[in-house]
Amino acid sequence: MPSYTAPVKDLQFVLHDVLNVSQSDIPGYAELEADFTAAVLDEAGKLTSQVLAPLNAVGDQEGCRFENGVVRTPTGFKDAFEQVKAGGWPGLDMPEEYGGQNMPYVLGTAVGELFSASNQAFTMYQGLTHGAASAILAHGTKAQKQQFLPKMVTCEWTGTMNLTEPHCGTDLGMMRTKAEPQDDGSYRVTGQKIFISSGEHDLADNIIHLVLAKIPGGPAGIKGVSLFIVPKFLINEDGSLGARNGAACGKIEEKMGIHGNSTCVMNYDGATGYLLGEAHKGMRAMFTMMNEARIGVGMQGLAQADAAYQNALAYAKDRLQGRDVTGTKNPDGPADPLIVHPDVRRALMDQKSFTEGARAFILWSATLIDAAHRGNDAAADGLVSLLTPVIKGFLTDQGYDMTVKAQQIYGGHGYIEEWGMSQFTRDARIAMIYEGANGVQALDLVGRKLAQDGGKHVMAFFEMVKTFLKENAGQDATLDATIFDPLKRASKDLQAAGMYFMQNGVKDPNNALSGSNDFMHMFGHVCLGLMWAKMALAAQKALSAGSGDATFHETKLATARYYMARQLPATALHLTRIESGAQTVMALDAEAF
Amino acid sequence: MPSYTAPVKDLQFVLHDVLNVSQSDIPGYAELEADFTAAVLDEAGKLTSQVLAPLNAVGDQEGCRFENGVVRTPTGFKDAFEQVKAGGWPGLDMPEEYGGQNMPYVLGTAVGELFSASNQAFTMYQGLTHGAASAILAHGTKAQKQQFLPKMVTCEWTGTMNLTEPHCGTDLGMMRTKAEPQDDGSYRVTGQKIFISSGEHDLADNIIHLVLAKIPGGPAGIKGVSLFIVPKFLINEDGSLGARNGAACGKIEEKMGIHGNSTCVMNYDGATGYLLGEAHKGMRAMFTMMNEARIGVGMQGLAQADAAYQNALAYAKDRLQGRDVTGTKNPDGPADPLIVHPDVRRALMDQKSFTEGARAFILWSATLIDAAHRGNDAAADGLVSLLTPVIKGFLTDQGYDMTVKAQQIYGGHGYIEEWGMSQFTRDARIAMIYEGANGVQALDLVGRKLAQDGGKHVMAFFEMVKTFLKENAGQDATLDATIFDPLKRASKDLQAAGMYFMQNGVKDPNNALSGSNDFMHMFGHVCLGLMWAKMALAAQKALSAGSGDATFHETKLATARYYMARQLPATALHLTRIESGAQTVMALDAEAF
Repeated sequence: MPSYTAPVKDLQFVLHDVLNVSQSDIPGYAELEADFTAAVLDEAGKLTSQVLAPLNAVGDQEGCRFENGVVRTPTGFKDAFEQVKAGGWPGLDMPEEYGGQNMPYVLGTAVGELFSASNQAFTMYQGLTHGAASAILAHGTKAQKQQFLPKMVTCEWTGTMNLTEPHCGTDLGMMRTKAEPQDDGSYRVTGQKIFISSGEHDLADNIIHLVLAKIPGGPAGIKGVSLFIVPKFLINEDGSLGARNGAACGKIEEKMGIHGNSTCVMNYDGATGYLLGEAHKGMRAMFTMMNEARIGVGMQGLAQADAAYQNALAYAKDRLQGRDVTGTKNPDGPADPLIVHPDVRRALMDQKSFTEGARAFILWSATLIDAAHRGNDAAADGLVSLLTPVIKGFLTDQGYDMTVKAQQIYGGHGYIEEWGMSQFTRDARIAMIYEGANGVQALDLVGRKLAQDGGKHVMAFFEMVKTFLKENAGQDATLDATIFDPLKRASKDLQAAGMYFMQNGVKDPNNALSGSNDFMHMFGHVCLGLMWAKMALAAQKALSAGSGDATFHETKLATARYYMARQLPATALHLTRIESGAQTVMALDAEAF
Repeated sequence: MPSYTAPVKDLQFVLHDVLNVSQSDIPGYAELEADFTAAVLDEAGKLTSQVLAPLNAVGDQEGCRFENGVVRTPTGFKDAFEQVKAGGWPGLDMPEEYGGQNMPYVLGTAVGELFSASNQAFTMYQGLTHGAASAILAHGTKAQKQQFLPKMVTCEWTGTMNLTEPHCGTDLGMMRTKAEPQDDGSYRVTGQKIFISSGEHDLADNIIHLVLAKIPGGPAGIKGVSLFIVPKFLINEDGSLGARNGAACGKIEEKMGIHGNSTCVMNYDGATGYLLGEAHKGMRAMFTMMNEARIGVGMQGLAQADAAYQNALAYAKDRLQGRDVTGTKNPDGPADPLIVHPDVRRALMDQKSFTEGARAFILWSATLIDAAHRGNDAAADGLVSLLTPVIKGFLTDQGYDMTVKAQQIYGGHGYIEEWGMSQFTRDARIAMIYEGANGVQALDLVGRKLAQDGGKHVMAFFEMVKTFLKENAGQDATLDATIFDPLKRASKDLQAAGMYFMQNGVKDPNNALSGSNDFMHMFGHVCLGLMWAKMALAAQKALSAGSGDATFHETKLATARYYMARQLPATALHLTRIESGAQTVMALDAEAF
């Protein structure tokens, strides 16, 4: 069975040596000193590796059971959930006035990686609650906040998000669920929602569903969608639980993975709901928390990749098979360990350079979220809005590929469920789909975000890369050749692709949209290239100063060089595809397929 | 639930318009006239789409059950197996003297695609039998052939291959299973084998296990391995079944996919075995059928990709979601079908251009096998030996990726087992692993096949591409620009990679081996590029002649242009990686990971 170790040293390196969080003037960051974050991460590391990780396979094998309207989570989930609540983890980055600890989002994100990596299906129960609570925090009335948040911040009550219906997922304008206004100001919500993660379960006393629905008579399409709070149990005036609401789970889905999380069909049958935010502004309310939710899903890509990589690495060091062609490495054994073989190395380095680069990317993005929310930094807000589809789409596509590579290292054993490597790929697969399928992320990036505010956010990104190179290149020939020059080339490829879209997208938008997936991926590579350049610099600096763990820093530099030599050049291929335009993509009539 | 339609028209196009099989002077090919192959393929199409495809999901959901030493296959498998046997399909390309129909391997391969695509787990029962029978055909004594082949050619008895042991898969020299010679000329085989596909089941009266084992006192390592025939039931002199042999299934594995096929732990406890071929030459005996087996697995990559693509395409035409940005295509409906969206097109064209290209590649390779075996063509034998790891590794890696792309088109529904798209990816995953994991294929290609016979086979391949271009380029500016020039560039990239290996592999073999996976993939792309160039020519010729279905041929040309513009340029990225050498791949000590 796989094991999991929290990558605390690596998280600390990114937080303190690369991002220098405690030196930042973002409100609340001064508290994030290295000793403090280390203590938090160590504690989270214990809980996740010792309690959650051992339940990962249990959740996969048992799954959730649906009996007489009740969903039972896998053995051990309830106890573990109590431990998570007792540790105060769900409220780590929530406001103190509702029982949270008011830590910056970047720390919540660092901790979140450990939770996701150790047990994604389990962590979704609290993840969805966090998302729903954030929506109430952003859009709820004072009374709503007081009624729901104290219980949701602690996960005494959990939350859900209800968007999809059988005939519409991406295109929510076709939604049929309706919410009829009542005299008392509440609404009666009727309709069916599908793919509702954590929709029904036995971990909490109450479940607070956030449901998108249309108020009859409102605008057609997506502009007539509103957001409602629909509790499983109504709440009495004294705060105690009242009658069961007309919201019920109709069935749970059999899925490819994340079996430990209940994916429900939710039937709303005249259920009492309360408008959250303004009428007909439901999509806007939903979207204010979309950045966080999508970054959270991007993190799942990294998290599953890292969990799978840790086990693949251990197996590659342990499994004896074949001999090093350049000379036996384990003369006393019947064979050398797998890790001597160049193609195994290649696969391990792909994984290592991805997960460490992605970790820096996610944490850097989290600091942008903090700068935007805590520091009212509009530039940071614009930049993270631009990067969100890249984080979600690129990291989940790549994260999935990495779990497949990790599984491959196990050979035949990778295909046998008992060894646990299949679960990483099956669980990682969903992250490419939910919270906006990756094709939709690419469309959002190229069709919306690139041109947002006159394109100033993407210009700011290129300017940032340019400034970084200007400040740091030209001082060390080796760093220039192995790190900065490749980053410069890749960034130029990305700019050329943006230029192609500008010049050819106007006469035919399909010229841009046919390249959207490639653009998202090349953007992701440039971001990871930038992260690796920053990490290489930090490592080089520590080595020059003779501070810290020299092997750790030399390994960082070597891994940076690998990424630059073997991964970053993918931008050229993406550019070639993009510049081939829409013609070959759109040539066929639908009937000709 | 997914459905499957046999791609008869496309197979016919490749067989007759591209490969012109009935014009070939390979013995037996004259029979392969278009009407005849169409009749065979239509018949196979009916059986596979109507009988095997509907059992695919059944097999996945029920799996095999192991009770008291007996393995029960899923509901319906037994009946379907009887229908397959009654149709004579297992013996299609087997010699007439043992009850087969003596058809060329290329026809068996075309039919095999339909079987694999409709139900891979089911088809493996006959596939393994075919492999075992081929080994007996090639290496058995006359008596062995007469004893086993008539029953195996009809699948009255099925076969298995036993290589892997718990501690060794790739590195079979560490094998522990032993075979002790007996006075009567037989051997007593003792040991444990794992991952034995079709090892035990209820579809046949007897199971003929081919088992690799070591005769005590023989050479150490891989040179001391011999191959044995170990029947489940011993066979009396009159041909009737005798006593149960000491070969028993210990358990069946829970796997990620191919649930309908029983993957067994096989325990041999002094089982009676008969030497097949020469003592200590077991690996050689195994390898003579490896080319066929590996091409068969490569075909599974194509087959699963095509089955998944067919369903993704149907869904993309049916599912209404969003609007075409260039103008509404379905004004009377609430939304346009998915297929209007450029990124959905891109994913569909990736799949279409891969499956059709791979189909041509597989069938062309099958003609090389026929030329080698039926025509004693040593050049064809050398070429197909070179291409075998490419077929196996490239087509299964890519085939898997294509099933993931097909699944993605379904959005959330792709993740729900009920919709069946997950099964294609889970089933396709095994083909990257078994019959030599793809890293081993890459190693075989770069470490062995490239330099085989002084490198003359790879030189012949380049010469063939050059000759093809010389004969066909320079006559049509559009074909040159969209088809032949891209092929020429890609072929040059491949040659440059080979040159890099020659120049840098001697001083450090890791410089070659670090690029082995990239080389295998770029070789695959060049092969598919060559196939697309041939198909484009054939289509162009038919259009010029005004013969056949013009839309079909125009679609071929458009798909060829897509492959050349969007897929083939991957060779440049692979070359960049290869030319970066071993340095970044091998930089870290194992402890530094």
